[in-house]
Amino acid sequence: MNNTFGNIFKLTTYGESHGIAIGGIIDGCPSGIILDFDAIQSELDRRKPGQSKITTQRKEADKVVFLSGIFEGKTTGTPIGFQIQNTNQKPKDYSHNDTVFRPSHADFTYQKKYGIRDYRGGGRSSARETANWVVAGAIAKQVLHQIAVSKNIAINAYTSSVGSIYLAKPYQDLDFSKVETNIVRCPDDVIATKMIDLISTIRKEGDTIGGTVTCVAKNVPIGLGEPIFNKLQAQLAKAMFSINAVKGFEYGAGFCSTSMKGSEHNDLFNADGTTKSNLSGGIQGGISNGMDIYFRVAFKPVATIMQAQQTIDNNGNIVTLKGKGRHDPCVVPRAVPIVESLTALVLLDFLLLGK
Amino acid sequence: MNNTFGNIFKLTTYGESHGIAIGGIIDGCPSGIILDFDAIQSELDRRKPGQSKITTQRKEADKVVFLSGIFEGKTTGTPIGFQIQNTNQKPKDYSHNDTVFRPSHADFTYQKKYGIRDYRGGGRSSARETANWVVAGAIAKQVLHQIAVSKNIAINAYTSSVGSIYLAKPYQDLDFSKVETNIVRCPDDVIATKMIDLISTIRKEGDTIGGTVTCVAKNVPIGLGEPIFNKLQAQLAKAMFSINAVKGFEYGAGFCSTSMKGSEHNDLFNADGTTKSNLSGGIQGGISNGMDIYFRVAFKPVATIMQAQQTIDNNGNIVTLKGKGRHDPCVVPRAVPIVESLTALVLLDFLLLGK
Amino acid sequence: MNNTFGNIFKLTTYGESHGIAIGGIIDGCPSGIILDFDAIQSELDRRKPGQSKITTQRKEADKVVFLSGIFEGKTTGTPIGFQIQNTNQKPKDYSHNDTVFRPSHADFTYQKKYGIRDYRGGGRSSARETANWVVAGAIAKQVLHQIAVSKNIAINAYTSSVGSIYLAKPYQDLDFSKVETNIVRCPDDVIATKMIDLISTIRKEGDTIGGTVTCVAKNVPIGLGEPIFNKLQAQLAKAMFSINAVKGFEYGAGFCSTSMKGSEHNDLFNADGTTKSNLSGGIQGGISNGMDIYFRVAFKPVATIMQAQQTIDNNGNIVTLKGKGRHDPCVVPRAVPIVESLTALVLLDFLLLGK
Amino acid sequence: MNNTFGNIFKLTTYGESHGIAIGGIIDGCPSGIILDFDAIQSELDRRKPGQSKITTQRKEADKVVFLSGIFEGKTTGTPIGFQIQNTNQKPKDYSHNDTVFRPSHADFTYQKKYGIRDYRGGGRSSARETANWVVAGAIAKQVLHQIAVSKNIAINAYTSSVGSIYLAKPYQDLDFSKVETNIVRCPDDVIATKMIDLISTIRKEGDTIGGTVTCVAKNVPIGLGEPIFNKLQAQLAKAMFSINAVKGFEYGAGFCSTSMKGSEHNDLFNADGTTKSNLSGGIQGGISNGMDIYFRVAFKPVATIMQAQQTIDNNGNIVTLKGKGRHDPCVVPRAVPIVESLTALVLLDFLLLGK
Repeated sequence: MNNTFGNIFKLTTYGESHGIAIGGIIDGCPSGIILDFDAIQSELDRRKPGQSKITTQRKEADKVVFLSGIFEGKTTGTPIGFQIQNTNQKPKDYSHNDTVFRPSHADFTYQKKYGIRDYRGGGRSSARETANWVVAGAIAKQVLHQIAVSKNIAINAYTSSVGSIYLAKPYQDLDFSKVETNIVRCPDDVIATKMIDLISTIRKEGDTIGGTVTCVAKNVPIGLGEPIFNKLQAQLAKAMFSINAVKGFEYGAGFCSTSMKGSEHNDLFNADGTTKSNLSGGIQGGISNGMDIYFRVAFKPVATIMQAQQTIDNNGNIVTLKGKGRHDPCVVPRAVPIVESLTALVLLDFLLLGK
Repeated sequence: MNNTFGNIFKLTTYGESHGIAIGGIIDGCPSGIILDFDAIQSELDRRKPGQSKITTQRKEADKVVFLSGIFEGKTTGTPIGFQIQNTNQKPKDYSHNDTVFRPSHADFTYQKKYGIRDYRGGGRSSARETANWVVAGAIAKQVLHQIAVSKNIAINAYTSSVGSIYLAKPYQDLDFSKVETNIVRCPDDVIATKMIDLISTIRKEGDTIGGTVTCVAKNVPIGLGEPIFNKLQAQLAKAMFSINAVKGFEYGAGFCSTSMKGSEHNDLFNADGTTKSNLSGGIQGGISNGMDIYFRVAFKPVATIMQAQQTIDNNGNIVTLKGKGRHDPCVVPRAVPIVESLTALVLLDFLLLGK
Repeated sequence: MNNTFGNIFKLTTYGESHGIAIGGIIDGCPSGIILDFDAIQSELDRRKPGQSKITTQRKEADKVVFLSGIFEGKTTGTPIGFQIQNTNQKPKDYSHNDTVFRPSHADFTYQKKYGIRDYRGGGRSSARETANWVVAGAIAKQVLHQIAVSKNIAINAYTSSVGSIYLAKPYQDLDFSKVETNIVRCPDDVIATKMIDLISTIRKEGDTIGGTVTCVAKNVPIGLGEPIFNKLQAQLAKAMFSINAVKGFEYGAGFCSTSMKGSEHNDLFNADGTTKSNLSGGIQGGISNGMDIYFRVAFKPVATIMQAQQTIDNNGNIVTLKGKGRHDPCVVPRAVPIVESLTALVLLDFLLLGK
Repeated sequence: MNNTFGNIFKLTTYGESHGIAIGGIIDGCPSGIILDFDAIQSELDRRKPGQSKITTQRKEADKVVFLSGIFEGKTTGTPIGFQIQNTNQKPKDYSHNDTVFRPSHADFTYQKKYGIRDYRGGGRSSARETANWVVAGAIAKQVLHQIAVSKNIAINAYTSSVGSIYLAKPYQDLDFSKVETNIVRCPDDVIATKMIDLISTIRKEGDTIGGTVTCVAKNVPIGLGEPIFNKLQAQLAKAMFSINAVKGFEYGAGFCSTSMKGSEHNDLFNADGTTKSNLSGGIQGGISNGMDIYFRVAFKPVATIMQAQQTIDNNGNIVTLKGKGRHDPCVVPRAVPIVESLTALVLLDFLLLGK
C-alpha cells in the first residue's frame, strides 16, 4: 500500500530523482475513455521545474510515454503503464551530499529506516515523484469528464498565500480562468504581483518561503465518500499530506470553526436540499452533499536553501552545508496542479467505488 | 476498507447508535500480549457521555465484553471480537426525526447515498462509533508498551482551546498528569476554569462551541511511516478526519510554517541525530525521526443545538426543528481519549508493518 | 487480510470453538436488500453438527443474531454485525488435549507460530468458523437474487463422492432438488445409500473418510472476474482452500484436461456466443462467459479419529491419544452448504466490483 | 487488486502482448539485498519462447531493464520498476483476428466485459504477462536466500506429466539437478524422451497437449501462512490459477486423499515435531509445519491450434479460423519456471508478513 494510491482507480509508482526513469501503473481505469494526450502533457508542463523565474531553474523535459492499456486512442480497462525519462540527471551535482544529512530533508530518516539511501537529489523522497501523480490526475480528470454523473465537475486550485501575503477574497469572488495568467497562479493580479515580488526577494536571499493552496471542486455529485474510515475529507487530507512540504489541511470553515457556535456554523437547508451557507465545505458525515467542496493546504518553506547551514554526516561529524546551483524559492505555484491532480484522483476513486 | 482501519493491526467495526450493540474485530494483534482489562474500561469511561456537567447527560454504561482472541488473559494472535451493548436506547426520543434532515448532520447525505437510513440517533453516523475506537486504541497502547522497541512511548492529548480561549503555552511547559484533574481536560488550571465557564454558558444558551485538541507522542522509535502514500502524517491526518466533527489538522509548525522562511523553519541537527528545534514535528519524509510528534486537531461546534432551526424533511417540506433533552455543548474534552486512541492505532500499525 | 474475505462485499470474522461466541462483520452489503432471516437460519441448520446419524453428534443451536446494519427488515448499507453464541461449550472434554499435538491438526503449527494456543476444541482452527461463512453466504445469495442482473443465479453443490463411491453421472443429468432428500446430500438415491452405508461403517470403526463436493453455478452473468491476479477461478480456488480439510480444486475439465488435445478441449462457439461444449467450466481468461460454472473440491478424511494414535506433547514426549465422545466420520455432507456459501460470496463480490 | 499480487512483497504489472513494453513495480522489497542480475535474466531465459523445438518458435529477446529501487547493486527499500521491451511485435500476424473470437481464448469475455479489446496476440490476456512474474519471482528467490531464516529454501518444479505420459516416481526419488538437462524439464531421462516424442507428434498434427507440473519447496520455515482466509495452500492455489491454462491444483495427498481413511491419512509425529509421513504436504491449518511442501498443477492443452476451427466474430457471423505461423504445442515445460516464481512470491510474502 505504500506506493499505491486509491482503492479502485489505483496508481502505483516508482522512481528516484536521478534514476533512469520514473513512472507508474494505473489499475482500474474504466475502458472506452478517449484520452487527450496533449492535455495530459499540458498538466505535466504546469508542474515541471524551470517554467518561470520564481521556481527552480532545473530543467526537465518531462515527456510522458504510455506503454499499455490504451488501444487506438481509448483505454481498454487493462493497466496503463507510463514512464517519464529522467533527462536531466547530473549526479555530480549531488555527490557532495553523499554522506551529509541535509536539515529538514528525509536523508536522515531514510538512512535510519533502510540502512542505505540513494542520495542523488533525494532519491525517492524527491518531489520529482509528483510528476507521476500529475499524469494520473490528468487522466482522472478526463475520466471524470466522460462519466455521465460527473461530466461537469470542475476542480480548481490556486495560490491563496505566499508568506504573509494572503488573498483575502473568498473563492466565490475569484475568476479561476485567471490562475494561469501569472506565474504565481494567484487569480488576483494585485496580490499576484506582491507574491511574485516577495518570492523574488526571498530568492535573492538564497532563502525559501511557504504558502497555501486553496482548492475548490464544483458540481461534485452527491454521495461520494464512505462514512467511517474512508470519509471524503479523510481521503483528501491523506492525499494532500502525501505532498512532501504539506504541514496542514483544513476544509470548509476549518480551524476557524473552532471558535464558532453551532448556531453560527450550522448550514441551514433550502427546500431543494442545497444549503444557505456552506461552512461544512460540501461534505457531511464523510459524504459529499452536492455543495462546493473547498479546502486549504499549508506548505512549509522548502528545506533546500542557498545559505550555509551547520549539519552532520553519516558518522555524526559536524559539517557545514551550503546549497549551490538551483533551488526552488517557493514550491506553492508548482503545487497547484499537484493539488488538483490528487483531488481528481480522490473524487474519481470514490465515484467508481460507490457505483 | 470503509469500516476497517489499519493495515496490519486492523480494526473493523459495526454498530448504530440505537441498535442492539456496537462492536468490532481487531485482526493482527500480536500474540502473547497480557491485557489489562481495567485499563481498557478506564479509557472507555474517559470517552463515555454523562461523565460531567459539561458534556451530554445521556448516560451509557459502555461496558466492553471480549468474545475471542484471548486465552488465559493473553492475546493468542487470532482476531479479538468485542462488543458494547447499547443499554440506553430510547428510540422514542428520536422518532420526531424520522423524516427530518438535521442541519449539518449526515441525515441528508446518508439518505441520498443509501436511499434508506436508520434515523435513530444518527444511526451509524453517531459519534457512538468512537467507543469502538477507544477499545482498540486502549489495546494498541498496551501492545506498544509490551513491544521492546516502543515500551516507553507516551501519547498525551489535551484540550488546547475551546472557542476563543486558548492554552498558549507550548506543550513542553505542560504537566500532562494534570489533564485528568479537570473536566475539560486542559492541563492548566486557570485556562481550564475559563473553558469550563465558557462551555457552561454555551450550554445554558442551548448552543455548542468548537475547540482544538493537541496531541504529543514522545519516545516514538525512529523509522515509523512509509515514504510516499502512507506517510506517518498522512495516516495521522486520515485517522483524525475520521472523527465526525474534525475540520482541520496540522502537525509541527503547521499553518504557521506558511509564513516562515526556510532559514527559520529548518531544524538543524545535533551531533547525535536529534535536532535543535523541532518545527518538523518529529517527521521527515513521512518517517518518524525520533523527536516528539505533535499535532493539533480542529473540532467544529456540534451540530445538535437546543435552539429552533428551520430545516426540511424527506419530502422537501420546510419544518422547524428544536432539539430537546440531552445535548453535548462541547465535544472537545471527550475527544481527547479518542485522539489518543487513534494515534496509538496509527503508531502501532506502522511499528508492526515496518518490522 | 487474514480474517477478511472479499474485496467489496467483505466478511471479517472472529471466534474460537469454545469461546463465548463466534461472529462477523459484513462490510459492503448494498442497501435496500430485504433480508429473509428464516432462510439464513435454514442455511445455518444445514451446516450445524448433530443433524443426522452420519455426522458428529455434537449439538449446537447455532442461532444467529444480527446486531447492526439492518433497519426495518432492510439492509442500510452500513456494516452488518452478527453473532452466534457457543452454547455447547464443554471445555472439560478437551482438557486432555491441553499439551498434546493431535496428528494432522493445526495444534503444532499454531503453537509454533504464536507461542500460545487456545487448545479447547482446536480454538480458532476449528471448523466452527465455517458457521460464520454460511451466515454471510446466505446473505450473499439473497443479495444476488435481488440484483437485477443476477436474479436467477442458481448455486447448487452436492456430495459427488465419499471414499471410493463416486456419483458418475454428469451434473447435467442430476435433479438438484433431491440434494436435501438424503442425509449425505447426494442427488442420486442409489449412490446416496451406498455413501451412507460406507460412512456408517467407517463411523463404527472410529475412523473417518474423505470425499468430494461438486458445485454448479448456473445463469452467472457474463463478465465476472478480473483478468490477471483476481481471476474468477483463482478466487473460487482460494475460497475453497479456506476450508480446513480441502486438498484439491479443479474446474471445468480439471485434471482430465491434462491428457487432452487442444482440438478435443476447445469449446466451439455457437452464433449466439454460447459454446457447444463447456470443458472450460464457464470461465475464459479469468472471466465468466455465461456458461455454467462447475468445479470439484477434494476433502481429506477428518483428522480426529476414535482410534489410539501415538503423538507428542508440547515437550516432545511421546504420548498416546485416543479420541473419545463425538466425532465426524465424514465432513463432506456438511461441507455442501459451506461450498455454496463461499461460491455466493465470490460471485457477489465480483458482481459488485465489476459494476 | 486486479493487477497486483502479494500483501507485503507486492508485484503490480502492466503490458500487452504487442504493446511497446511490459513491466511491473515491486513494492515492499527489503533494503540491502544484493541483486544478481544474471540470475534474474537466466530465469527469464528459461521462460522465453523459442528456446527449443518443442515450444513456440516465436522469438523474444526478453531483456529486463531495472529503472529504480536499486542503488550500487543493492535494493534500497523503494519500489523496483522494471521493463521488458516487446521486440518481436508483428501486429500484422494478428490482424486477421481483429474481430474473430478464438475458441477457448479470452477474446469473447474481454470484449463483453470491456466493450473493447486489444486483439493483437491476445493483448493483456497473453501469457506474455508471465515474464513479469518470472522477474519478480527471481528477485523473491534472491531475497529468500539472503534472509537468515529462509536461506536454504529450495523451490523446484518439474514436468510431471504430458498428456498420458506420467512420471510415476515420487519426488523424493528424483534428482532435481536433472530438470534442466532436457527440453521438457522432466528429471527422468526415459520419461522425458517419451514426453518430447509426444509433443513433437502433437506439434506436427498442428495440435496441442496438456500436462502437469509438480513443485516441491524444501526447508520452508515453520509458521508461514495465516489461519483463516489467507492460508498458505489457498494463496498457492490462487497464485497457480493466475496462470492462464491452469485447471486444477492439489497439494499433499490431494484428490487421492478423498478415498483414504483418517487412520491412513494422518501424519504421526516424531519426537522432534517432524512427521513420519507427509500426506499433509507440509501445511497444517494453513501454516507451514516444516515438512516439504509439494503440490501439483494441471494445465489444459493450449487453445491455439494449427487446425481449422469454426468460430464466430464480433457480429455473430460464423467464420472458419485456422492458426498459422507459430504455436506452442505444450506449455508445460515453459510453465516450470513460472510455477517456481509464483511459489517464491507466495513464500516470501508470508515470510515478510509474519515477521
